[in-house]
Amino acid sequence: MSKLYFRHGAMNSGKSTALLQAAHNYEERNQHVLLAKPAIDTKGEETILSRLGVSRKVDFLITPTQNLRTEYNRIAAQHLSQTGSKISCLLLDEAQFLTSEQVDQALQIAVLDDVPVLAYGIRTDFLTNGFPGSLRLLEIAHSLEELKTICRCGRKAMFNARKIDGHFVFDGDQVAIDGLDVSYESLCPNCYFEEKHIH
Amino acid sequence: MSKLYFRHGAMNSGKSTALLQAAHNYEERNQHVLLAKPAIDTKGEETILSRLGVSRKVDFLITPTQNLRTEYNRIAAQHLSQTGSKISCLLLDEAQFLTSEQVDQALQIAVLDDVPVLAYGIRTDFLTNGFPGSLRLLEIAHSLEELKTICRCGRKAMFNARKIDGHFVFDGDQVAIDGLDVSYESLCPNCYFEEKHIH
Amino acid sequence: MSKLYFRHGAMNSGKSTALLQAAHNYEERNQHVLLAKPAIDTKGEETILSRLGVSRKVDFLITPTQNLRTEYNRIAAQHLSQTGSKISCLLLDEAQFLTSEQVDQALQIAVLDDVPVLAYGIRTDFLTNGFPGSLRLLEIAHSLEELKTICRCGRKAMFNARKIDGHFVFDGDQVAIDGLDVSYESLCPNCYFEEKHIH
Amino acid sequence: MSKLYFRHGAMNSGKSTALLQAAHNYEERNQHVLLAKPAIDTKGEETILSRLGVSRKVDFLITPTQNLRTEYNRIAAQHLSQTGSKISCLLLDEAQFLTSEQVDQALQIAVLDDVPVLAYGIRTDFLTNGFPGSLRLLEIAHSLEELKTICRCGRKAMFNARKIDGHFVFDGDQVAIDGLDVSYESLCPNCYFEEKHIH
Repeated sequence: MSKLYFRHGAMNSGKSTALLQAAHNYEERNQHVLLAKPAIDTKGEETILSRLGVSRKVDFLITPTQNLRTEYNRIAAQHLSQTGSKISCLLLDEAQFLTSEQVDQALQIAVLDDVPVLAYGIRTDFLTNGFPGSLRLLEIAHSLEELKTICRCGRKAMFNARKIDGHFVFDGDQVAIDGLDVSYESLCPNCYFEEKHIH
Repeated sequence: MSKLYFRHGAMNSGKSTALLQAAHNYEERNQHVLLAKPAIDTKGEETILSRLGVSRKVDFLITPTQNLRTEYNRIAAQHLSQTGSKISCLLLDEAQFLTSEQVDQALQIAVLDDVPVLAYGIRTDFLTNGFPGSLRLLEIAHSLEELKTICRCGRKAMFNARKIDGHFVFDGDQVAIDGLDVSYESLCPNCYFEEKHIH
Repeated sequence: MSKLYFRHGAMNSGKSTALLQAAHNYEERNQHVLLAKPAIDTKGEETILSRLGVSRKVDFLITPTQNLRTEYNRIAAQHLSQTGSKISCLLLDEAQFLTSEQVDQALQIAVLDDVPVLAYGIRTDFLTNGFPGSLRLLEIAHSLEELKTICRCGRKAMFNARKIDGHFVFDGDQVAIDGLDVSYESLCPNCYFEEKHIH
Repeated sequence: MSKLYFRHGAMNSGKSTALLQAAHNYEERNQHVLLAKPAIDTKGEETILSRLGVSRKVDFLITPTQNLRTEYNRIAAQHLSQTGSKISCLLLDEAQFLTSEQVDQALQIAVLDDVPVLAYGIRTDFLTNGFPGSLRLLEIAHSLEELKTICRCGRKAMFNARKIDGHFVFDGDQVAIDGLDVSYESLCPNCYFEEKHIH
């Protein structure tokens, strides 16, 4: 009986590293995995890039209108016919960007197709509101596991505060991939409230 | 530095027992707690009733329009003036019925007023959709801890399937307190899918 | 595939309550459980007594020389012949007092007889040294889960400090059941170090 | 208030990767850490080497007779005088090889010197018996967190079975670093029992 896992953590908590390590653990035991991520994440295009310097190409990108279960099973069948090997695990990076329906399909892959699904992602956006994918994962994942990191003050970071040109901002679109102007800093609630002047 | 905890579990996993035990643990160490629950839950009216047979009156009911932080601080101040004792913990039962704003206020009680808040509740309704309070708790609680129970098949139960006159139903209002006709059975995703004919 | 769980917590963290709730959860779903504890614990004799006021007689006591797996299977077979029902779970209270061998036998019950074993107990004695049963559980249980309680200072309690006539003592036998003169106070490491003058 | 964490997992579960990621997380926030490991581990000499390919030199090796707290404070003081920066975290790899006393000293670093200590290691040897360091960590760490990996059968691996020239062996010294002849395979209890002919 396989499960759907949501391994969540603030930005820069090491989620991609953990995903690549999990893939490595399977492969070291001669088991096969598939890696995927939502196409909306343009940071590494088709690559999962860990801040420790490890990177790897995904096996497929998930577009917003795709049925994840259908697509997974198509690619797994292809893999089986080409290599003679079944898939032992589906690993999803940036899972907060999945649609709610795709998370339901991920649960079906685990429960009905009996393949474990490890979904890595953040819980909330820069305003502390969930993304469609993370909200649905928080509702229906079998197991919620936190990857921890620290705030500038030494407490556990939870929120993903957005900075533009180095200044904290509290309005804007939900999705703004970090790059030239935009950056994120993971903060604990205390420091987040301090920056937002909530007291 | 206090935290907001969401201790979630399927129906009949022992959440009220765990809450009453936590209250007991504080009081045995001569510390004072406050117990509250949303007024929407009419099951025990002003009582938290554990299926093990233990029960206790709440200190206050939370109405949907109330500011939880203001109300908590009012009652804590009253308690202090009457007994000379500060409050060491706020315990919330049926926390899924809080409003989203009240969960933000609960986080502020923990972070800004430095009082731990232990919120107990279910993650999802009979259609596997979150309640306003549980969704916000899943987004912003410092710590997500699961209270486990079992499905009829022996696996871990996660979903709260509704029965009317003993038959599983998959449409209706989100809130229907269990009573004469309505009952709930906690199921694992496999058994839930089976009853809902998803395959 | 069943598992051996070690649910550990400082004294007075609610372990017996949690055990009785777990038993109740199984029975509410018409499943049968067995409750047992080591005979060395004379506090409640054949009774598991929760500080919330709930109590229940154990199905069997475990003496130090007994083979737990043999004894469990004997009683489960008896139960089956008398009631027609299989056992769905074995619950062990005060599991720190099991012998190391009995913990190995508990793992075999889970793995080879496919019955989940829930063992509840404390990690360490009043000098912070493990008991034979808890050490072995910490080594080989599938899952280590903590039941939390608080120290007098508000931090999480971990250690079980012994008092005689109200004064902390730091020498004596490993086992001294709390009663007339002897009592225990669960402390965090900071308060424990303070009482033991470690700095 | 800082804590002692024991992050345990079977061999090849990614402990060194997780340690290097944790160090990276601190440093990315301009905080300073120290990395250390027991001198007994000769695998990488003074290097922590992750199977993902990331590696890093430790700041100091811990010999069996050393007082870990004294040594840590000496090096932290040196670091402060040379760089003007305090140490925010002590990271310990292969922590199962610490002595019992050194684990007590690690707890004192966390509690009395207020610096978090993250200890990574395995729980048990190839015969499922604890090492001195891991047993003491299981007794007194504030937090026990598992890093999971899988068995050849797809279940969670827990035990570290030893192979010599590819054959499982069940007698020998507790410590035999993997190398030319000796290797280890992480197994679930079911597969371990199968190889050891326990049924």
